[in-house]
Formats: sequence, C-alpha cells, structure tokens
Amino acid sequence: MKLLPFATLLFASLPAFAQKPKPTENLVQYAHPIVGTQKMGHTFPGATVPFGMVQLSPDTDTLSYEQNGKYNPDVYKYCAGYQYDDKTIVGFSHTHFSGTGHSDLGDFLVMPTTGPLQLNPGTADKPQSGYRSAYSHQNEVAEPAYYRVKLDDHNILAELTATNRVGFHQYTFPKADDAHIILDLMAGIYNYPDKNVWTFVRVENDSLVTGYRHTNGWGRTRTVYFAMQFSKPFRGYGSRNYSKKEVYRGFWGRFNQTKNFPDLAGQQLRLYFDFKTAANEKIKLKFALSPVSTAGALQNLRTEAPGWDFDQIKRQGQQQWQQELSKVVIQAAKREDKDNFYTAMYHAFLSPTTYMDADGQYKGLDQNVHRADGFTNYTTFSLWDTYRALHPLFNLLQPKRNADMVQSMLAHYSQSVEHMLPVWSHYANENWCMIGYHSVPVIADAIVKGNAPFDANKALDACVITARQQWYDGIGLYLQLGYVPEDKSGSSVSKTLEYAYDDWCIAQAAQKLGRQDIYQEFSKRAGNWQNVYDARIGFMRPKLSDGTFRKEFDVLSTNNQGFIEGNAWNYSLYVPQDPAALIKLMGGNQRFVPHLDSLFTMHLPDKFFAETEDITRDGIIGNYVHGNEPAHHAAYLYNWTNQPYKTQERVRMILKRMYHPTPGGLGGNDDCGQMSAWYIFSALSFYPVAPGSNEYALGSPAVNGATLHLENGKTFTINVKNQSDKNVYVKEARLNGQKLTRPFLAHQDIMNGGELTFLMAARP
Amino acid sequence: MKLLPFATLLFASLPAFAQKPKPTENLVQYAHPIVGTQKMGHTFPGATVPFGMVQLSPDTDTLSYEQNGKYNPDVYKYCAGYQYDDKTIVGFSHTHFSGTGHSDLGDFLVMPTTGPLQLNPGTADKPQSGYRSAYSHQNEVAEPAYYRVKLDDHNILAELTATNRVGFHQYTFPKADDAHIILDLMAGIYNYPDKNVWTFVRVENDSLVTGYRHTNGWGRTRTVYFAMQFSKPFRGYGSRNYSKKEVYRGFWGRFNQTKNFPDLAGQQLRLYFDFKTAANEKIKLKFALSPVSTAGALQNLRTEAPGWDFDQIKRQGQQQWQQELSKVVIQAAKREDKDNFYTAMYHAFLSPTTYMDADGQYKGLDQNVHRADGFTNYTTFSLWDTYRALHPLFNLLQPKRNADMVQSMLAHYSQSVEHMLPVWSHYANENWCMIGYHSVPVIADAIVKGNAPFDANKALDACVITARQQWYDGIGLYLQLGYVPEDKSGSSVSKTLEYAYDDWCIAQAAQKLGRQDIYQEFSKRAGNWQNVYDARIGFMRPKLSDGTFRKEFDVLSTNNQGFIEGNAWNYSLYVPQDPAALIKLMGGNQRFVPHLDSLFTMHLPDKFFAETEDITRDGIIGNYVHGNEPAHHAAYLYNWTNQPYKTQERVRMILKRMYHPTPGGLGGNDDCGQMSAWYIFSALSFYPVAPGSNEYALGSPAVNGATLHLENGKTFTINVKNQSDKNVYVKEARLNGQKLTRPFLAHQDIMNGGELTFLMAARP
Repeated sequence: MKLLPFATLLFASLPAFAQKPKPTENLVQYAHPIVGTQKMGHTFPGATVPFGMVQLSPDTDTLSYEQNGKYNPDVYKYCAGYQYDDKTIVGFSHTHFSGTGHSDLGDFLVMPTTGPLQLNPGTADKPQSGYRSAYSHQNEVAEPAYYRVKLDDHNILAELTATNRVGFHQYTFPKADDAHIILDLMAGIYNYPDKNVWTFVRVENDSLVTGYRHTNGWGRTRTVYFAMQFSKPFRGYGSRNYSKKEVYRGFWGRFNQTKNFPDLAGQQLRLYFDFKTAANEKIKLKFALSPVSTAGALQNLRTEAPGWDFDQIKRQGQQQWQQELSKVVIQAAKREDKDNFYTAMYHAFLSPTTYMDADGQYKGLDQNVHRADGFTNYTTFSLWDTYRALHPLFNLLQPKRNADMVQSMLAHYSQSVEHMLPVWSHYANENWCMIGYHSVPVIADAIVKGNAPFDANKALDACVITARQQWYDGIGLYLQLGYVPEDKSGSSVSKTLEYAYDDWCIAQAAQKLGRQDIYQEFSKRAGNWQNVYDARIGFMRPKLSDGTFRKEFDVLSTNNQGFIEGNAWNYSLYVPQDPAALIKLMGGNQRFVPHLDSLFTMHLPDKFFAETEDITRDGIIGNYVHGNEPAHHAAYLYNWTNQPYKTQERVRMILKRMYHPTPGGLGGNDDCGQMSAWYIFSALSFYPVAPGSNEYALGSPAVNGATLHLENGKTFTINVKNQSDKNVYVKEARLNGQKLTRPFLAHQDIMNGGELTFLMAARP
Repeated sequence: MKLLPFATLLFASLPAFAQKPKPTENLVQYAHPIVGTQKMGHTFPGATVPFGMVQLSPDTDTLSYEQNGKYNPDVYKYCAGYQYDDKTIVGFSHTHFSGTGHSDLGDFLVMPTTGPLQLNPGTADKPQSGYRSAYSHQNEVAEPAYYRVKLDDHNILAELTATNRVGFHQYTFPKADDAHIILDLMAGIYNYPDKNVWTFVRVENDSLVTGYRHTNGWGRTRTVYFAMQFSKPFRGYGSRNYSKKEVYRGFWGRFNQTKNFPDLAGQQLRLYFDFKTAANEKIKLKFALSPVSTAGALQNLRTEAPGWDFDQIKRQGQQQWQQELSKVVIQAAKREDKDNFYTAMYHAFLSPTTYMDADGQYKGLDQNVHRADGFTNYTTFSLWDTYRALHPLFNLLQPKRNADMVQSMLAHYSQSVEHMLPVWSHYANENWCMIGYHSVPVIADAIVKGNAPFDANKALDACVITARQQWYDGIGLYLQLGYVPEDKSGSSVSKTLEYAYDDWCIAQAAQKLGRQDIYQEFSKRAGNWQNVYDARIGFMRPKLSDGTFRKEFDVLSTNNQGFIEGNAWNYSLYVPQDPAALIKLMGGNQRFVPHLDSLFTMHLPDKFFAETEDITRDGIIGNYVHGNEPAHHAAYLYNWTNQPYKTQERVRMILKRMYHPTPGGLGGNDDCGQMSAWYIFSALSFYPVAPGSNEYALGSPAVNGATLHLENGKTFTINVKNQSDKNVYVKEARLNGQKLTRPFLAHQDIMNGGELTFLMAARP
C-alpha cells in the first residue's frame, strides 16, 4: 500500500481536519493499520475503534494448524489473519488479535461474491477455485476504523468500519443476477480439525441472522454470539454442513436444511445469502458480537448502530481515534516521525479489548454470565508482554481504562477455580501462555502510582494468593529452594528472574498499603534472582535441584537452556527491580558497561537466529533482541552506570532501526501493543524500567516537543531544543525549570502537570 | 421386585400414614415406579418428585446407538436407561424420559465403588471388568421419590431421593481404604459417537464440583448444567479424557490435568473422587441441575436442599406425591386395582417436567436465557401422545399446571424461528418427532374448557400460524388438495386425519373466542378427513397427488402404507371430531358395529407384529393396538352407535388386560403418561374422545367409587353400585340424581362438583 494516496484520501474524506490543523490537527492520518502486516508484526489492517470488541479485518489465508497430519509452521504467519505479501483475500472476519505470537479468533468470516455460488474458499494459487478473491494494494486503503479493498474476482468494492461491538460492511456490487454474501462459520485463525465445537444459526427473517460459534483452541471453551443484519432482504439462502461425522438427524431428516431453512446447527457450517444487484448497488451489513447471547448481540447492534449510514459510523470511529491519539500531540521534523508515533499510539490502543455487552453483561471464566458493576470489562491480556510498558503507558494516558483492566483481572481472579490472576487470558478463558504472574506488576504499578480506584487491599491479596500457588509452574520449588530448578521445571532461569521481579512488585504495593508482613515476605523473595547468577561466567545460568549449575549451556542459545524467548545474554540483564545490585554483582561499571556494549555490537552467529522466536533479523541489533520482550529495558540500564549517555544513543538507534511506517516496519510481533508502547515512551524520552516503581528512566526525546493531555485535566509539556538524528544526547534536562541531576523522572511529576525541557547535543 | 416387602417398608418409614388411613390414606404405597420397566414400558424406577426436573434413576445399560458402525436396535430398550431383566447397574443418572419411544438424556451418571479404581463401565456379562455392579431385585426398593439398591460388587447400599431440581444420593459404604465416587460425563442414554459435544467441569473446592454437558442428540443443541456437593471432602480426585481426537492443548500441556487439577474441559471426560470410609459410613451427594448455568444449579441446590438430612428430603418428596395422588381417592375391592390406579397417577404426573431454575430462568429455543414471568416453565412435550388423554386429565386434575404448560408452549412459539408451536420438544430443543401440530388440541382443550388464564386470543393466533406453515410436513399440499398426497409426503393418511382433527380444535377455540373467520376457515379444513376415505373398501387409504388412491395397499400393514405407528384398521377410525359422520360414511350402525367388533376380535397375522412399533404382543387385542396411541379412543366409538354397552365391555377388557402392577405390566410405551391417563379416565368411567370439546364419553367404572378433589375446591364423587369384574355394564347412570339419557358427560358438570352414580349389571 502506498502511503501517499492513503493520506490524500483521508484528507478528502475528512476536510475538516485538513483545514484546521490546530488545535485539533488530524492525527488519524498518521496512524497506519497496515504497519506490521508484513513479516512478523502480526498486526491486522482492518477496522476497529479503540479497545473495541470487534476487529473487522481481511484474512488473506486461513491455513490449518495441521497439514497432512503435522503441525504446519506457516500457520504462524497468520496470527492476525493477514499477510501483506499475499495476493488474495478470503474474507472479512470479526475478531483478531493484534501482534500476538500465538493465535485464535477469526470468527465469522463474511465474503461477498458474484457469479456461480462457491462455498469453498479455494486456494491462494487458484483464487477462482473458491469464493476468495485476488486484490491489489493499489486498491486498498487501511485507516483507523476504516478499511477498503476492491475484490477483483467479484468486481466488488468492500468497505469496513466498526463501532465497539458492531462490524459494519458496505459492499458495492456490479450489476449481477447472482450476487452472494457468504458467512463461513468454519473459517477461523489457527484452525485445526475439530477446533469448531459447535455452531448454531437462526435465520430470524429475510434480513436478520443470529447464532453463535463455540471453539476449542487457544481459548479452550470459547463462545462468541452474533447478530447479523442486512440492509436489503436476501432473495434466498442456504447452507452446507461439512462435518465429516454424521451429525444425529432424527426427525430433522424430513427437512431440507440446505435451502431456506432457518434453523441450523452443527460443527462445520457455511451459509450463503443470495441477492440480485443493480450496478453500483450498495449492500450493507451490520454484524454485532456478544460474549453472552444472541439477544445481547442484537441489543448491541441496536444500541450502537441503529441506522444504515456507513459514513457516519466511520466518522464516529475516526473521531474516537482522534480523541485517543490527541492525548499526546507531538512536534516532529519529519512526517515519518509522526507516522511512527501515531501508528504506535494506534497499536497501543487496540487491546485489551472490550468484553461485555452494552448492558455490562459478560461471560466469566466459569462460563456463567456476570455483570460488570461500575467498570468496563476487558479481555485479551497478553501480560507477559504488556506489563512492561503498555500498562504503565495506560497508567499515564489511560488511567481510567487501566483501572478497569485491573478490575477485569480481579473479576477473572474471583472466577478462577485455580485462584489465580490472569496469566494470558482471552474470552473467558485462561490460555496459560508464557511464564510468571504478570498481572502482579500491572496491579502493583497501578497501586504504587495511585491509580487504584478499586479495593487495593483485595487486589494485593489476589496477588499474594497467586504468588503462593505452589502447584503452578515451579513455584513450589522456587519457594523451597529460592530458584526454579531446571531439572524439575524448564525455562527455570526465566521463571526465577520473572518471579523475583513480580515478587518485588508485590512488596512495593504492600509497602504503599502499609502491609508490612507482605512487604517483608516478598522483598525477600525479590532477591531470588541472585540464586541463578553464576559469578564464574558472569551470566544467569540454569541451576539444578542439587544446587549445581547445569553443565551443558550456551549463552547464545535460547533452546532448552533454562530460558524462554530470550538467551542468557538478554535474560541475564533482567533484574529491573534492582539494576544497581545487578551491576555490582556483574563487576561494577568497569565490567558491566563494556558487557552491555557488546550486547549491541557483538555478532550473533546465524544458527541462533532460527531459535530466536517471534522476530525477523531486523528485530535484532547485535545480540540485543528488540523484537521480543525480555530485554526491552536493557538499553536503559546505562542510566545506572556512569555512562547514561549510552542509553540515549542506544535508544535512538533502536527507535530508528526498529520502527518504520511501512507494512514490514515492525521487527517483531507487536504483542498487543507492547512494542508500540516502547516506542511511545522512548520517543517521548522516558521509560518505565520497573513497573511497580514511581520512576521512569530518562532516555533521549526523538520528537521536537510533545504535549500530554492527561485525564486529570493537567498538561505535561516536553520541550526539546536542537533535537535531530545526530543530536541524540541530552546536554541538559530541566523539570519545571529545575535542572535534573539524575536521569530519572517521577510519575507524579508528570501527573502534576508541568514542563520538561531538553537541550540536545551531538556529543555526550 | 416383590411388592410385599416394598409396602411393608413404606409403612415402616411412614408410620403416620399407616396409622390414620383416612381421610389421608397413604396412597404413595400404591404407586410403583417399577411398573413398566420390563419389556416396552420404557419407564424408570428411580426417584423424582411430581413433574420434577431431576429424575435420578439407575441405568442398567448405556448401549451405544451404533454397534460396528450400524444402528444397534437393542438401544431402543434403554429409552429410560433401565431394563428389569438386566443383572447389573452401571450407575445413577439424573435425567430420564418416562415411557418415550425415542430417547436422549441420562445426564451425569454417578456411581460409588470400592476397590481398585475402574473408570470404564465394563460390560453386563463381566460387571467386574468395570465400575458397574451386579444387583438383585431382592435388594431393590422403588417408591415414589425413593429408590434403594444394594450394589453387590462394591458392597454399597445406594439410596436416592430428590427435590424438584436436586438429586440426593446416600451411599452406605463398607470399611474401605479405596472408596470412589465416579462421575461419568460420557455416559448417556441413546449415546452414539460424538453425541457429547463438550463437557466442562470445575472442582470448586474439596466437596463441590460444577460444570455442564452439551450434547447433540434427539435434542440437537442441548446443554445441562450441574452443581454437585459431597457431604464429606474427597481425599483426592482425578479425570481421564477419552476423546479419540487430540484436543488442542497449548500451554495447558504443562499441567497434569488427570490428577487433582480443578479445571477440566473436553469431549469425553470421566472423573473420580477418592475417599476412605469406615464401616457403614454414609457419604451423601447432592446433585443439582439447571438449564441455565452452574450458578443457577448451585442456587437451586442451596434453595431446595440446604441441609444433609436424606430422610427429610425423601419425606418431603413422598408428601408431595401423597398430595398429588390424593386428588383422586378411589374405593376398590382389590389391592391390585389401587396399585394400578395410583401407579397410573404416578406415571401421569411425571412429565412435562419443570424446566426453569428456582428463580424462573430457563434456556429458550434460541439458546438464550429467558425468565418465566408468572408461570412455571415446563419441557418434555410428547404431544402426539399426550394431547389425547394426558392434557385433558390435567385440565381436570392439574388445571394450574396445564395452563402453565400452555404458557410454556407459547413461550416456545415466541422463540421458534419457524414460528411453530411445539411438535415434540425438550430442553430448549424441538426434535420434530411424529406428525401433526398437536399443541393445538392441548391449547384448544384448555380454552374450550375455560382453563385459559393466559391471552387466549394470542394462543389461538399461534395455533393458526402454526397450522398455516406450508413448508411443514405436507401442509402446503394439504391446503391445496384437501389431503396430503402420499407420493409427495409419506404417512399421508395419518397426517391428513390428524391435521383435520387439529383444525377442528382450532375451530372450536375460535368459536369459543368469537373469532368467526377462523372458525369458518378451520371448520372447513376439519372435514378433510373425508378426502382420504376410500368408500369402495371402507377404509382410509393413501391418495396420490393425481387424486387416485394408491394401488399397493394392505389394510393390516403399518409400513409405508400412508400410515405411521398404526395400520389402516386402527387409523381409519381416527375422526374423533365427528364419529357420527364417520359411522355414517362407513355404512351406519349396521355395518360399522360389526366392523368395530372385528377390530377387537380378528386375528392379526404374525408378520404384522414386527411392524407394530413401541408395543409388545401384550399390547394388542385382535388388531386393536392399545400399546400405541392412534386407536386410544376406538373403544369409546360404540357410544355413537346403538350399542354403547360394547364400549363398556371393551374398556373393561382393555383395563384388565393391558395394565398390571408388575414390572412388565404395561403393554407398550407409557409415552410420558398418555397410557396411564387412559387408565385413569377409563377406570373412573369417562374419556375425552375429542379434546377440544367439553364432552366426555362414558364408559364403565372399574372402581367401587371415587372422589375427585378439584383445584377449585369442589368435589366430584363417583358412586358405583354392584361393580365387579363381571358387572361391567352400566344399568343406570345418574348425575346429581338426574338419570343420564346419553352416554356422555360435560366437563363443566364435573368442575361444578357433584355426584355421578352408577348402577352396574352383569348384562348390557
């Protein structure tokens, strides 16, 4: 997709923004959903509103998890359903993760077609063999809350927009006697045989269809309900059941359920709806979701999208984006900087997603219907990723939402039969992805930063109980030995380091709440990181249950070496709660600084790339892996040495090399916004190295200025003088006129409103 | 099972009843759940309260629908899960149909065991190969709301009772270090591969388990939720997933879900709970159901069975039965007559079953949760059977419940995407079993008899819309041609006859409500029965769409002859709305009476027995099939001839030959109480030949007297003089002293209270 016609088009459709760039400059124009859709970004280009329940987006393939009975590694590319290099679109489905390294969703794929009915999607190399269509990026536009593409095989212009819970399709057909709209209930992302557990459909009348889909996948017991309304009555409809197993028929056998029969259920269903269209006739489709019931979906539809004005819904959606994006107004020398910044803001504000009906009802972990009392219930908690920078960003820019997210986590906890806060949860399911108990830093960060309009003591109790679940992933042995032993529980070093950090977070929250006993207990646990440090080699190293370090060990390898999604080089720096102690243990400035330097400069042999998950080669600088999370704080560690200027230069280098406003512009999975949150913080000049503390480490502003419009009504302004690609060093920084003597900033200093002024220079 | 120890035992446990036989004689002693459990009765012997949601009953086998890839005809025996001749019990499940000719249910099979854990049920010939157990009828007691059996293999005494929504188990264990309670979520009645769609289980704590089971069977999308509470904490628990398909595991793979893991889901699960027991230690189990949620089940449990007093729950249940049974107090010469009568009352008051939580919530046809507003929602509507005598019986003895059943049908209608009243529905599903639209006579009967505390005009509208659904089962052609043509739609004569009768019912209700247009339209349709009468042969006969009668035709055969579950001999009499016209068409008294005589006396060649569904040879008298429904009114047709005394002798013969208080005592499926309702009416001396009219045809009382305690507070007394097995003829009948000149009785005459007096004689 070319960015130029995109921008032109946006101005054309939103002249108001174009004519009055201030005080409300059109920021939506700088946010490009297409960024990250190539390679490993795993973002989606489709239409959604901020934190919306619906992510209505094109899927370019729906590869099966299995191929010839084996895992198909290509399926990984399709975590968000869309790959920029693909030449065909299968259809438009209503739920998508943004940037995850695993997947699910892709519910309710809809596709408009013309010509003889084809109910099979066909293959990418032979699009005409099925309902899918060739398309071209020349005929594609992806904006916040708006997506448009020409479906070449069918000569249909497809446009998509959305409200929170309703996907809105507008299809401009050619003159056709045999136009169809397909609803494929078999389609899904990361599909595999029998992922569909059950689907249920009712054709309520000639323009309304309701139903649900129950899948067993990453979400083990996941049900999504829908209500689908057409702007024009269909002439007829039909379905086919592709289940290989004969579903019990009984007396249903007397009915022809394949043609104009309104009552359908089964494991593998595809439906079609027939139309006759005039040239350029628009058929619109509103597709509402609910976590609870078809009645809920219908109510969401009627509440959020009662009419048929596509442009109005689009305008509303883009206004919502404008409002969210304008929480930070930056000055930048180059268009590209704004493109990067607001694309990052866009990606950071996609998830967690709303997970309740307009009336507050949602499905809980127990699969019962609950009602969110006084908060918006969210789901899609990719916490191993997002505790690092995304939730701290929310405490700054989205405090209300972040508090609601904490309440959602506490609701999850109260429903959890394991009595655990979420690990990685979505759609009333815990999928247990990755390690640690990283709800804890999110909750602790909110408490410590004073953004806790919930029962903070109960929240702390939930953290403590979670952290004491001895059956969970090595915690029992961790409590006993002070570390997770590799021979009993794999990825033991990563777990030990992350448990220790999470424990420190509990201690901080306990201190804030005056819970001294908990503070003591968890402060002690927070020191456990030292137990896996091998002073002889200067790296964290897997330890066995007999107290000895594991012999076979390669500091560059990620595979079964005691680490997960990061090697010893990257993970050994993971003591965000006490970098000073780490540096001391690693030999002080004299030894630590060159060690950290070499992380960024060393040569990583080719063979280790293959092991480095979730990223492309672009996502690595030396041996520093930015495309995955464990070392995201690493560049800021220089602030604890005598050479903080190196933080400034490294951060600027990473910003420049890892983020581009192009489809392939992300060096790794965006991970529900964590990668983007890193960008936003770093470009603004500060970063939360240890969420759970009040402190940000200062870096180097990559903007010429910025204004943060805070929810408390205050404004925090960042003034930057002499900043350029070369002038990356901070010569002087002043907070409200006071010169800063340490490269750190307190959260409260921002929240109080004020002014941070940088004077930049070309040399340290 | 011997009846003597049964009665003794009941008196022992209920001394109050035994000591004061009047005015409240213990009637519970005469009701024998074991009746009909042998051969084709398809009743269950377990514990339930009147119209209860829970039917907690032993299953002696859980045969699969398929065997070696083919339909297994033996499965039909297990419609109610229990066959008297079986030697082993597999376990106790919580839902059962009573007397149906098709099946489903058998949810949540529980079995206590001792010895090494066996999770497989084993086979009947080798019970020790699995958890099932041998048992003996000597050690078995089946009473209303109470069942008891000794499980020989495990040396456990199992006792069952129930409230409306809670099954209550009491297991007396021997001393055992390895006692177990199995929860088999794979077990079910009429099971077949993949009938289980999904099961979900949470072990909430050491004595509470919740979950649900979603099946695809006769109920296509059927979900039942449960909450299961143990009186004693289990020492440990575990599960096995028997699904042949590998369920997606993801990060769940790191947990050992088979042992003490509280969060389970999958398609084929069995669980076990371990105990140590002392000699004679009782472990109790409360198992609550809900159509809505596990929260609903738990609430039902807490509402209905907060304590642990098994005997109290049993006593409550039997008191409920006593209350229902004492609505008719009969005098009889023989114990057997009371046994027959109150067993019939018991079976008649089992279904429809309650289908809502204690708070009124239930699942609707749309699979959404609804709330019953001002009525009790019922399910299990076996309407092709029960419209004939059961619902008319309810209009007499259970008017409040019957009105609620109509409201339940109207709720079904309002949720039906086909805009149809129920055909045969259960558990938020329409299973479409059998023919006709026999909600109509149930609704019309209630309206005509003045038992319509609901919006009768809306109810009539629902009837009309249902009867005009041209897509449904030949109705389009029926409207066009005046009959269903056999070459277009099978069982065409049965359908034509039943549609015509149902249409007459609509006309009657319309007349009562002053809806003249509808009265006209449907009165005309009601005459359509004449269109399938072949005067040349004197039988109803399948007609083709060209207006000619089908040539190949055997008046004795049921197979593909235009009839279903009845041959031309039986079905040709099916004009309950106008017997006089039928008799006239068939040649008047002179020809009709000998014709009807021969129905009862002719010899039915052996080959036709095999075709006669749902009944044993005992269920046939000559060619009159009492074991199935279509001719249930036939014996009463003599009342429209000049020889009504033959009704009296035939009815008495049928009562005597078709009903015995023994396990094999029913000549055919009890069909949710229809067979039993026939008994009750006929034994009391009258029968509703045409529900939808106010009139009962008089027969011959088989009791020595009876008092009907009506819900309106009135009493209707039947006095019978000189009645005996020989004195079956009515010499004189008086209503409130007035001699009856016609062998008919009006519904209102009963409801007003009063006295019907018979003088019986040995000759007509």
